[in-house]
Amino acid sequence: MSEVATIEWLDAPLKTPDPDARKAAEARQATLTKPSGALGRLEDIAIHLAALQNSVYPSIERVNITVFVGDHGVAAEGVSAFPQTVTAEMLRNFSRGGAAINVAACAVGAGLEVVNLGTAHNTGPLNRVRECALGPGTANMAREPAMTEQQLANALTAGRDAAKRASSEGADLFIGGEMGIANTTAATALACSLLNAPPSLLAGPGTGLDGTGVGHKAQVVQRALELHSSHITSPLEALRRVGGFEIAALAGAYIASACLGQPVLVDGFISSAAALTAARLRPGVEDWLLFSHTSAEPGHRILLEALAVQTLLDLDMRLGEGTGAAVAVPLLRMACALHKDMATFAEAQVSEKL
Amino acid sequence: MSEVATIEWLDAPLKTPDPDARKAAEARQATLTKPSGALGRLEDIAIHLAALQNSVYPSIERVNITVFVGDHGVAAEGVSAFPQTVTAEMLRNFSRGGAAINVAACAVGAGLEVVNLGTAHNTGPLNRVRECALGPGTANMAREPAMTEQQLANALTAGRDAAKRASSEGADLFIGGEMGIANTTAATALACSLLNAPPSLLAGPGTGLDGTGVGHKAQVVQRALELHSSHITSPLEALRRVGGFEIAALAGAYIASACLGQPVLVDGFISSAAALTAARLRPGVEDWLLFSHTSAEPGHRILLEALAVQTLLDLDMRLGEGTGAAVAVPLLRMACALHKDMATFAEAQVSEKL
Repeated sequence: MSEVATIEWLDAPLKTPDPDARKAAEARQATLTKPSGALGRLEDIAIHLAALQNSVYPSIERVNITVFVGDHGVAAEGVSAFPQTVTAEMLRNFSRGGAAINVAACAVGAGLEVVNLGTAHNTGPLNRVRECALGPGTANMAREPAMTEQQLANALTAGRDAAKRASSEGADLFIGGEMGIANTTAATALACSLLNAPPSLLAGPGTGLDGTGVGHKAQVVQRALELHSSHITSPLEALRRVGGFEIAALAGAYIASACLGQPVLVDGFISSAAALTAARLRPGVEDWLLFSHTSAEPGHRILLEALAVQTLLDLDMRLGEGTGAAVAVPLLRMACALHKDMATFAEAQVSEKL
Repeated sequence: MSEVATIEWLDAPLKTPDPDARKAAEARQATLTKPSGALGRLEDIAIHLAALQNSVYPSIERVNITVFVGDHGVAAEGVSAFPQTVTAEMLRNFSRGGAAINVAACAVGAGLEVVNLGTAHNTGPLNRVRECALGPGTANMAREPAMTEQQLANALTAGRDAAKRASSEGADLFIGGEMGIANTTAATALACSLLNAPPSLLAGPGTGLDGTGVGHKAQVVQRALELHSSHITSPLEALRRVGGFEIAALAGAYIASACLGQPVLVDGFISSAAALTAARLRPGVEDWLLFSHTSAEPGHRILLEALAVQTLLDLDMRLGEGTGAAVAVPLLRMACALHKDMATFAEAQVSEKL
């Protein structure tokens, strides 16, 4: 990534899902040997993917996962249950293959890369980690904008580049993950800004705050919003002032995927805050996003309502890293297999409904 | 299966999940590099399976699926959206590999067998179908008991034998499926009898009845219950009078699995009616049952509440055949992989919670 990235690419044309492939997939579903609609959401997924892949027989073979990692200056306000060193420590854990997303990616046969966008504690070069540091984490949004304009542009572009790598490697599906101590605080502030919602509604325990901790976190977000709100005149400026490196990268990856016509499976709360930002920046991006799971982080339901989307799973997960999306990959594959491989009423000589 | 099966085996001792393996698995979960509880239900699954498999590292490699097929005399009352010939036609479809469960079993690498317990329309011998016909379907429960005592014993024993085959083949998990036109009517009657609930509460569209059809179905169930209720003095007699061959086979398979210490993943509405019957017959069976999905068939939620269980998926599926359970298999595998392969805080030198 260039250190002087520009963001004209954010305005590139988005691809449009194919209505004819959608209709053809709907018609095929109606012929398969099952009562109409009996496969429920699996039918919807197959039809949606048909439109995205412009094929009556969609398939999800290659899946690429990129985990974006970055620290947050707002951690200094005591908003996380874990110390800030954990961001760098988890980078090492990703590098060595010990984190949940390493195991989950392996379990679904997905390609996994990790992008270091800047941590407060230097890890030095790590195997399997792409270095892209934009600084030692963001600035403390409770005192100043989280990012400079150049950092924002570079973070968005780091996301675009990951989406492009996935596409050039032939990915049928892109998943973005994130890790960064205090990033639920940034996602909460960003969501509150975009939705004009009170922090008390969206703030949650993140990695494990108690009730007092959640109250404090909401106050910190409130202070940050009071500091920045009069300057926030666009989704991009909200992202710069109260977002984070990894959240911007996810938003960039989602927009770039929509430009490339690459289906995306969105993870949890933080990823959904990035998805809302991307959809506000470029309406139409949301057409390319499937939503994997509903997080136990309480603000997630509000984000999902704002996006008017349903998730596939609700397993009380709240880990991030892309894990919820990875867990949902087999559902997409199952939907595609049933859609493609089931016999039709005519082929199987099965009688239709009375 | 013997044609004069007896049911003394129903009283055989049940295995008990291992509390020490459960505790060891709980302890391991607490050491993995994630916030405590952040993998949500996936943690619970791994811990539950640890207790069932008596191993701190449970695994779900081999999965055996048996689909039990049988016709229902109550179809004569016009309670299904599909003609009765579809049961035999679907047997042929299973035999040729074209049904949803064929595709789903293949997608998760599960072994699949189909047991024909008796259809109204004769198919002749079919590849990959185990013949075990107990008659041309059950009798019409709106007029007489659905099964004779011998048919009930044989159906239960057919289920036991399937569970034993799975166990002898080394299955880590048993899934039962079912197919039979009008079997949501039988499952509704059985559930109403066991729960002392009105048919109007539990009757649903099944394969696709409209509102008028659902009302008629509830009336047919009501008539059957009025005919039989004074004779129903046990869960076994409820099963005989208003159940079905495949429902009895499922109940037998669940009880036998609990005797063998074989974990079971239960499918949807009909399977859950069988599970409730099994749990009423032999309290403790429910320890061995995991519940895969919540069906769109409205009575399913009531059965799940009565069983006091949560499902893993809620995808508006309502197909039966074992499909909902097959779709959930990758979640169990993912839970086991995360539990076994993630690094601990100590191994990864990651700081713990503040």
